[in-house]
Amino acid sequence: MFMHNKKLQYTVRVAEPNPVLGTLMLEQFGGPDGELAAAMRYFTQGLAEDDPGRKDLLIDIATEELSHLEIIGSIVAMLCKGAKGKMAEGSMAEADLYAEINSGGISHTESILFGGGPALVNSSGVPFSGFYVDSRGEPTVDLRSNIAAEARAKIVYERLINITDDVGVRDALTFLMTREVAHQKSFEKALYSIENNFPPGKLPGMPEYASLYVNTSQGEGDAEGPWNSGDEWDRMDDIAGSIPVDGGDGLATVALKGRELKDNKAAAKRTQSDPSANPTTGADLGAGPGAGQTKAIPLDH
Amino acid sequence: MFMHNKKLQYTVRVAEPNPVLGTLMLEQFGGPDGELAAAMRYFTQGLAEDDPGRKDLLIDIATEELSHLEIIGSIVAMLCKGAKGKMAEGSMAEADLYAEINSGGISHTESILFGGGPALVNSSGVPFSGFYVDSRGEPTVDLRSNIAAEARAKIVYERLINITDDVGVRDALTFLMTREVAHQKSFEKALYSIENNFPPGKLPGMPEYASLYVNTSQGEGDAEGPWNSGDEWDRMDDIAGSIPVDGGDGLATVALKGRELKDNKAAAKRTQSDPSANPTTGADLGAGPGAGQTKAIPLDH
Amino acid sequence: MFMHNKKLQYTVRVAEPNPVLGTLMLEQFGGPDGELAAAMRYFTQGLAEDDPGRKDLLIDIATEELSHLEIIGSIVAMLCKGAKGKMAEGSMAEADLYAEINSGGISHTESILFGGGPALVNSSGVPFSGFYVDSRGEPTVDLRSNIAAEARAKIVYERLINITDDVGVRDALTFLMTREVAHQKSFEKALYSIENNFPPGKLPGMPEYASLYVNTSQGEGDAEGPWNSGDEWDRMDDIAGSIPVDGGDGLATVALKGRELKDNKAAAKRTQSDPSANPTTGADLGAGPGAGQTKAIPLDH
Amino acid sequence: MFMHNKKLQYTVRVAEPNPVLGTLMLEQFGGPDGELAAAMRYFTQGLAEDDPGRKDLLIDIATEELSHLEIIGSIVAMLCKGAKGKMAEGSMAEADLYAEINSGGISHTESILFGGGPALVNSSGVPFSGFYVDSRGEPTVDLRSNIAAEARAKIVYERLINITDDVGVRDALTFLMTREVAHQKSFEKALYSIENNFPPGKLPGMPEYASLYVNTSQGEGDAEGPWNSGDEWDRMDDIAGSIPVDGGDGLATVALKGRELKDNKAAAKRTQSDPSANPTTGADLGAGPGAGQTKAIPLDH
Amino acid sequence: MFMHNKKLQYTVRVAEPNPVLGTLMLEQFGGPDGELAAAMRYFTQGLAEDDPGRKDLLIDIATEELSHLEIIGSIVAMLCKGAKGKMAEGSMAEADLYAEINSGGISHTESILFGGGPALVNSSGVPFSGFYVDSRGEPTVDLRSNIAAEARAKIVYERLINITDDVGVRDALTFLMTREVAHQKSFEKALYSIENNFPPGKLPGMPEYASLYVNTSQGEGDAEGPWNSGDEWDRMDDIAGSIPVDGGDGLATVALKGRELKDNKAAAKRTQSDPSANPTTGADLGAGPGAGQTKAIPLDH
Amino acid sequence: MFMHNKKLQYTVRVAEPNPVLGTLMLEQFGGPDGELAAAMRYFTQGLAEDDPGRKDLLIDIATEELSHLEIIGSIVAMLCKGAKGKMAEGSMAEADLYAEINSGGISHTESILFGGGPALVNSSGVPFSGFYVDSRGEPTVDLRSNIAAEARAKIVYERLINITDDVGVRDALTFLMTREVAHQKSFEKALYSIENNFPPGKLPGMPEYASLYVNTSQGEGDAEGPWNSGDEWDRMDDIAGSIPVDGGDGLATVALKGRELKDNKAAAKRTQSDPSANPTTGADLGAGPGAGQTKAIPLDH
Repeated sequence: MFMHNKKLQYTVRVAEPNPVLGTLMLEQFGGPDGELAAAMRYFTQGLAEDDPGRKDLLIDIATEELSHLEIIGSIVAMLCKGAKGKMAEGSMAEADLYAEINSGGISHTESILFGGGPALVNSSGVPFSGFYVDSRGEPTVDLRSNIAAEARAKIVYERLINITDDVGVRDALTFLMTREVAHQKSFEKALYSIENNFPPGKLPGMPEYASLYVNTSQGEGDAEGPWNSGDEWDRMDDIAGSIPVDGGDGLATVALKGRELKDNKAAAKRTQSDPSANPTTGADLGAGPGAGQTKAIPLDH
Repeated sequence: MFMHNKKLQYTVRVAEPNPVLGTLMLEQFGGPDGELAAAMRYFTQGLAEDDPGRKDLLIDIATEELSHLEIIGSIVAMLCKGAKGKMAEGSMAEADLYAEINSGGISHTESILFGGGPALVNSSGVPFSGFYVDSRGEPTVDLRSNIAAEARAKIVYERLINITDDVGVRDALTFLMTREVAHQKSFEKALYSIENNFPPGKLPGMPEYASLYVNTSQGEGDAEGPWNSGDEWDRMDDIAGSIPVDGGDGLATVALKGRELKDNKAAAKRTQSDPSANPTTGADLGAGPGAGQTKAIPLDH
Repeated sequence: MFMHNKKLQYTVRVAEPNPVLGTLMLEQFGGPDGELAAAMRYFTQGLAEDDPGRKDLLIDIATEELSHLEIIGSIVAMLCKGAKGKMAEGSMAEADLYAEINSGGISHTESILFGGGPALVNSSGVPFSGFYVDSRGEPTVDLRSNIAAEARAKIVYERLINITDDVGVRDALTFLMTREVAHQKSFEKALYSIENNFPPGKLPGMPEYASLYVNTSQGEGDAEGPWNSGDEWDRMDDIAGSIPVDGGDGLATVALKGRELKDNKAAAKRTQSDPSANPTTGADLGAGPGAGQTKAIPLDH
Repeated sequence: MFMHNKKLQYTVRVAEPNPVLGTLMLEQFGGPDGELAAAMRYFTQGLAEDDPGRKDLLIDIATEELSHLEIIGSIVAMLCKGAKGKMAEGSMAEADLYAEINSGGISHTESILFGGGPALVNSSGVPFSGFYVDSRGEPTVDLRSNIAAEARAKIVYERLINITDDVGVRDALTFLMTREVAHQKSFEKALYSIENNFPPGKLPGMPEYASLYVNTSQGEGDAEGPWNSGDEWDRMDDIAGSIPVDGGDGLATVALKGRELKDNKAAAKRTQSDPSANPTTGADLGAGPGAGQTKAIPLDH
Repeated sequence: MFMHNKKLQYTVRVAEPNPVLGTLMLEQFGGPDGELAAAMRYFTQGLAEDDPGRKDLLIDIATEELSHLEIIGSIVAMLCKGAKGKMAEGSMAEADLYAEINSGGISHTESILFGGGPALVNSSGVPFSGFYVDSRGEPTVDLRSNIAAEARAKIVYERLINITDDVGVRDALTFLMTREVAHQKSFEKALYSIENNFPPGKLPGMPEYASLYVNTSQGEGDAEGPWNSGDEWDRMDDIAGSIPVDGGDGLATVALKGRELKDNKAAAKRTQSDPSANPTTGADLGAGPGAGQTKAIPLDH
Repeated sequence: MFMHNKKLQYTVRVAEPNPVLGTLMLEQFGGPDGELAAAMRYFTQGLAEDDPGRKDLLIDIATEELSHLEIIGSIVAMLCKGAKGKMAEGSMAEADLYAEINSGGISHTESILFGGGPALVNSSGVPFSGFYVDSRGEPTVDLRSNIAAEARAKIVYERLINITDDVGVRDALTFLMTREVAHQKSFEKALYSIENNFPPGKLPGMPEYASLYVNTSQGEGDAEGPWNSGDEWDRMDDIAGSIPVDGGDGLATVALKGRELKDNKAAAKRTQSDPSANPTTGADLGAGPGAGQTKAIPLDH
């Protein structure tokens, strides 16, 4: 069960209201790499986890991320507090209020729809989606997703810090950013505490394709590196000459029988195109007499 | 520029139509870990990348993932081909067709809305979202996201293989699954070819919080492991006694002045609650005379 | 700051696994009236609230709703635990596994994509949306939304109880349902502790339209009740004869000048339709010679 | 059946074009509290309603809300009419047009994608969602949702009025705002015309939890009021000492048997973490030799 | 202004309840080609239209589509009426109710979340989206979108008819399907009543590319027809030898200066990959000693 | 299988960075009429198509659209390249960076979340949706959708050209716009190469309703044209006197029996409204003593 202590994990001291900055901060409140996504990612994994160590780790970090949601939400609330009062009381001249809420980002929606409170949207107003949480129920997969999610959250905080000169906001953001680093380290330890965690999951692959590099993009700029060359790799450069790689006919086929076969033939016949026709079309009707756009033009280069 | 060879990278031999299985396969066509998400993840990263080796790698794999989208889409098309013809021609008795399209999954929507063609949805019918692509424009972050995405795609293929006894479908799925393993290996090599890739990004964190483990969830089941204990970790077990960790007052504050202060006070006054009132409420009105639900009941356990 | 106790608020005893029932329970985990939506509704309001009593109330209930999210998520995890193991190990014959995951609801997606863990989707697989949280930053509005949300959650629990014969699941669901009733009562008390909470917000309306009932739908079935008749209501039955109600011309107009006027005229001229034409159309081309569908047919009834 | 009279219910006189203001107005056209959401909320309820009085009421108001959609849409169309012509004819210098469409809100998308016509999006460009309509098919629930929805719509109109100094726009918006007040009153009457409408729905709750207040958030700021104290309430302050409230073990359990038990054990074994390991991790590899970020630092405060 | 007559445009006689069929019908209530999408497509165009004939046409058909929304919604309501009562009263044994609501489609969500009323979702439960309405504010474009939308709606009705043996449902669906044909004809007439409607919009294209066919997909199956061959077309078969078609270098370039140039160089240096390294990776760590999956295997086919 | 040549189909020469313009260009990268939507529309149709000519055409154009996605994505990448470096290195003063990213559109989200790379969103930040792809599996329908989609893409490019004075960007956009014209022509030819393509699909309609125009919107502005008048049309002007058109009772009915009938009666009784009551309501409680808003006011106009 969750409990709440009215103190924040980290003090939030905002110098002065700035609703535009506040709406940018929503990126980490209701955005894809934000604290709610993080909390729910670990919480959903923790609920279904049986390994005692990982279960404890996941719920510990989920609970801390909820506390971070509280911090970033409090930053938003403080930055938007001035706007909230003005919208509620409507005490400014309309034109001034109009100018103020149009000064950047989605601060207008924050004001008009959400009344200056923190909302579960990102900095463009896109609502939080449950699919931001990519838990798949297999720890050798989920821990890698967690590592990546912490890395994404770290870089977004870095960018938010870069645009803020409010010392108190920078301080709290730097704390939050640092905790993502600590969490990434925990998830890395947890991943490598599972023996034979690669490839993830259980089924082995086909050995002949597990170390093959397919050089599908060619031309000036083709490059080599440890990711496609050297002893660990087979390499395929002649694509057209090698496909299908299984030695078959490279087609997709299915065996239809009876009614299915008959219906498919009937549908094909009903909708068949006549390659020898040169029909007048709606475009021809629409272009009017003598319209050049529907006629070919010699291509000389 | 992209070009296309009419042969598939891997031959698709489907034994017989099965629209329910076909709709489950949509998970890897238009789902969050599917081939379009993969192709677009690497393509968007490649377009903005300047490092010549990584750019080449990203476009190579993006192009191969488009070819895998073609394979999985062809599997769907073959599995649903019988249903497509039946819907188009309406030749079965209505009740039979009704029974057939209700036999599982979203095969009914596949039939009714999409007419049996592959659609950009997952196996529940959720449309593909551009936010499945989590490219963030920083290679030390994006490569970790790519590693995680390949791991997720691998496990989903594994599960699809587990439910299929069509030999040709299993064969093609196993090929696709194996290629995710190879791609993960390439992205791992690319990540570790960047020196000092951890922490991701550029800004350093606050050292005092970068190795701190906060034990927020306590009780029977509290556990230790390399992710929260040992020389690499500081540990905080007494949460209530330690917060806020910065030594401040643990509150969120902002300095309001002038009209903003005045408006906030006016709004607070207008909407203040009276803690000493015990008002009759809508629930009281609705519960009717003598309704027990709005009264307290002794709690004895 | 949030903290977590490893005991649940209410014990969850599931008799036996049932992944189909588990996926139906997702309605209250990641659905629009589910516990995450509830927790976030009160949490976002609490963060921005200044009234001390309401702020305390909102965070109290938000925290309890997170604990309810843990309960319903645990129910899902227990119900799906059998499916989780089978998918992970792939130990059943493929055809059996295929049959099992197609037995109802979105249990297939729960298995294939989420691996049997609780996911932030509803019972149809629709991902949780941040717009389920309809906090608007004005307590006379938000408290009414909270009352309505609790009522919706109550009825959805009621329906889930109606379809379950697992005694332990019914017991836990009934606890959760009852708590919604208690929460509704708290929010009712909080609403009516604000003096003059109706109309919500600050601006008065136009008195002449605030008690007017417009009888827009007419015919057999037109009815009267306290919502449209009696001393408290003015009534408008002759719609066509009364509009526009402001006595104007009933048109929408704007004054365009200069370039704007000129551009609009040019665009209108470029795209004007010729009402006297009877052009041959694409449908005419497509219908083929003698096709009856494009011609009128006498309408005799 | 619906019919349409070409006069508006209320005359719309817009002083001059202002596409930025026009896009803000979209909040009530295609936003969550907008007129389409309102119309569809009542329409879907009305279609399924059997009570003759409520059915008539719901269709009456649904039809009026469609007429309000027409009014707010006409306001948008008039405000954006200048932009529409300019985009269509491209007659301004590109740089001037670029500056104009970037002057606030999503007026650029309104211009580029929608060509200056009213679009089913909110003021941030978020598309209308069918889930804005929260009809649940139970009148004691739905009428509360309707009351809350009218309150939300009222406050959003209030805010739009506060930012507008165009007299004609303010006038029409005030009419629309007033009608929400009248509709709320009708729905209140309809709710309380149902005897015993609280608790909503049919099933009774567990009496011992229906009047219990759980004080989950504690610390400075803990408060009392009629929503959590007094004769109508039981109160729980010692959370840790009281859970689980049912007197059980506070765990989530399910009985697994046979293959399910075996598979779960196998999966657990395959993915078990070794708490005594201290593995080298990807973060260690990435941090490079001597990198301080992966090491602990004394925590002195 | 809209008004409503309590009679339907077409009588709906449903033989007996069938909630599964009812949920399939939602495809045309809240789905992408459904009646709400249609009504809103024409309504949004009509509001912004200045041409008197087209404006009248658009509002006429929008109003009729709302009346069709009423018909299809009534079909859903009748088909689900039995389920509605059962869910509301919970009078069946739980197991029977469970079995009944799991009999197909999303009828469980229809029952649990929506209580058997018509909901703004498609037959898979995907909520209606404002982006189903693709009005662009240019009649030569919008009329083509309308023609296509009517064609899509027609085919979806055709498929719904094919799966229904309830005579009254088939009859009403056939009426609705027929009206789409009539509407398509009206929009065709309106399109071709605009002179020179092709190409749509105002700007001419580059003549040398307006009749060029680029044969990007080659191999067995390459075909010719009036869409790519003959006097009206130029054709490009040698792609690699012809690109870029403008005769430039085929690269994407931008001129960076000053700080921008410096920052890009710094970022490139910080994240540069070392193509000559062969780093140990996380996959190597995870694969364990001697793991074959990370090593190359001779590729013999 | 897809392959890639490192040269673009058309050279992209961007004069200087402009992140605001870059984000507007996203409309054609990840927006509803953008190149990914186009590529996937034709690709999904092509995979399921059996007609050899159309299959070839669809894959040819799908592949070219992917190449156009590469061009528009490269334009975005070049326009945002300066912003990317600044965000990555954080070398500007925070206030300057803040000002720069707030200069228009969603360039802040592009910077903060996506780091200046091309993202699968539209110009308002709305994520790409799989439902932008409206393939329905019937060529007489899909080809009409393709024609409309090309028309929409053409007009959006036109508008982007109108706001850009960067010569290189205009040049590349004009190329892309022109290709949409060429593609529309191909799809027109393909449509009219199918004999009897109207009405689309297979089922005939009811002849008496296929040429009927229902004049649902009446009043000043009622107009005639070839779309509603003349020999090809029947016309219905007296709506109220003509409905239901089938001559029935205009009601929606279903036969309920047994338990279903009983349950519906019970639910109706439980929730019946009392039209003769005049209950005190929550609004009455909230309005306080003497509040005028809940009383009627004489309506004099």
